[in-house]
Amino acid sequence: MSASAAISGTSADPLLEPLLKGDRRALAQAITLIESTRSDHRMRADSLLAAVLPHTGRSVRLGITGVPGVGKSTLIERFGLSLLERGRSLAVLAIDPSSKRGGGSILGDKTRMEELSRRREAFIRPSPAGVTLGGVARRTRETMLLVEAAGFDTVIVETVGVGQSETAVSDMVDMFIVLLLPAGGDDLQGIKRGVIELADLIVVNKADGDLKATAKRSAADYQHALRMLRSPTAGWTPEVTTSSAQTGEGVTEIWSVVERFNGAVGEKGIQKRRAEQARAWMWNEVGETLLSELRKHPDVRRLVGGLEREVEAGRTTPAAAARTMLQAFHGR
Amino acid sequence: MSASAAISGTSADPLLEPLLKGDRRALAQAITLIESTRSDHRMRADSLLAAVLPHTGRSVRLGITGVPGVGKSTLIERFGLSLLERGRSLAVLAIDPSSKRGGGSILGDKTRMEELSRRREAFIRPSPAGVTLGGVARRTRETMLLVEAAGFDTVIVETVGVGQSETAVSDMVDMFIVLLLPAGGDDLQGIKRGVIELADLIVVNKADGDLKATAKRSAADYQHALRMLRSPTAGWTPEVTTSSAQTGEGVTEIWSVVERFNGAVGEKGIQKRRAEQARAWMWNEVGETLLSELRKHPDVRRLVGGLEREVEAGRTTPAAAARTMLQAFHGR
Repeated sequence: MSASAAISGTSADPLLEPLLKGDRRALAQAITLIESTRSDHRMRADSLLAAVLPHTGRSVRLGITGVPGVGKSTLIERFGLSLLERGRSLAVLAIDPSSKRGGGSILGDKTRMEELSRRREAFIRPSPAGVTLGGVARRTRETMLLVEAAGFDTVIVETVGVGQSETAVSDMVDMFIVLLLPAGGDDLQGIKRGVIELADLIVVNKADGDLKATAKRSAADYQHALRMLRSPTAGWTPEVTTSSAQTGEGVTEIWSVVERFNGAVGEKGIQKRRAEQARAWMWNEVGETLLSELRKHPDVRRLVGGLEREVEAGRTTPAAAARTMLQAFHGR
Repeated sequence: MSASAAISGTSADPLLEPLLKGDRRALAQAITLIESTRSDHRMRADSLLAAVLPHTGRSVRLGITGVPGVGKSTLIERFGLSLLERGRSLAVLAIDPSSKRGGGSILGDKTRMEELSRRREAFIRPSPAGVTLGGVARRTRETMLLVEAAGFDTVIVETVGVGQSETAVSDMVDMFIVLLLPAGGDDLQGIKRGVIELADLIVVNKADGDLKATAKRSAADYQHALRMLRSPTAGWTPEVTTSSAQTGEGVTEIWSVVERFNGAVGEKGIQKRRAEQARAWMWNEVGETLLSELRKHPDVRRLVGGLEREVEAGRTTPAAAARTMLQAFHGR
């Protein structure tokens, strides 16, 4: 098949068949296509996505967040291996917009999940570097569709818990898990405001050795605190457990909670959430694209700095400044 | 002065001088102007706002939320009267987008703050009916500028705590106060998810009679829960108090907390927050206006329902649907 046929979408993309058969090379190439900023690649990626769409949606989608040092990689490795033992397969996708800064993302290192990364039933993909959160999030969401089409029945989207990315992740998964350290109540361990409220499950990790008792106490504290917050998911009351990525204690139990979650929320509940997520995603895309078109307009670019300063200093009302900017954009 | 001169902004609006002198009729007329949807009124409102802007920003801006039944009106009346006794003045503005439904807003009834509404140093304005949250919020924000220009040194923006409006309110005030009922931890009393996280101060109301002990226990519970959440305001640790709007116990103490809050956050901190709020407001206006222009476009209107269904059913990716919509909008 010619490249132009693939681009025009008149015939199937050569990656489609091997991808649907679970060919890892085809999967990796398809992801590279999605991450590319070249417009011909983008067109091909779009028609590939359209073709795989009927083969997606059959995985359990989990989001896991936790600050560096909480033991996230070790826990995901242990948890992942226990899933493989159950006969499941797992794709781990990372969202880390900070990876563009200072080079060398903590998430870019495949070796941090050494055993898992060697397994055929597992697929680990670090965050694409050098793009905005919106860009990373969109690519991760589309990558999730690709790994589902390739047959992975469990997807973990992981994030570092210190930025804006947690909301983006919770907006693309079925269940959101927050990893915390023992005894962190007072300083919140760097977890960003609002993240606790997204949690369907809080796991207090490092519940081993000297920290075990503290971890249990922290779990009880968080359980208490969660009572004050409304559950992010209809039909489900958020839970708190403890785990030790080192000893493995409590790690396999996480999957029991996931199964109970799926049972409680139900197939219909999951589908409803996914439909709402997709709809919101579409409108976000529309809104963000419009704003970025506006920001790129030469007349707006000339005005924007001054208007922001005027508004910040209280010399112009936000509404008046917005109007000025929109008039410039519309060439009036 | 002719009407056209007022509209063109070449000379001062006849409402400006009496407004700045604190004339209540001029203030009411100016607010009516702001709430009007007529474009000539809107132009006049804009030039009036530009003229009053240098005279704004000198009030303490408080947001208060609480579900119906929590005793919000009685508490605001008591609290307001205690402010007047201290020589302060108070404007109470309501945001209640639900007031457009089913007529007869619970906030529309001035008589619910009977004593306060009769006082010269107080000004109570119900929510404008029949508009969207975005519309109500913008008008309330602009009304806040008008009451400040009219000399009120304290503004309370109140909301019912069951909708989207709490974020809008917290985005226009210096300090956000959440009223709760005793012993409501388990069911969250209908308070919307995320609202607790906005709180600089939680007041457990109805701490009288049989409920007093329960209220104290609830306050301790909330205090405990707040430890798990990051403070919405740099330099301030959220507090929990109890009050009785009936007996007045704990009501005047709210002002002590406000004063401590202002001291802790500092003049600079308040100015910084206001600058960020104004900037975010401008961008929200821009984004919402662009989206509403898109939604009004005839080609988009033809497409939007079908695209939403396709996306919700998982037959089209959100990105592809967004692109189709944007192409229709741009006439491509």
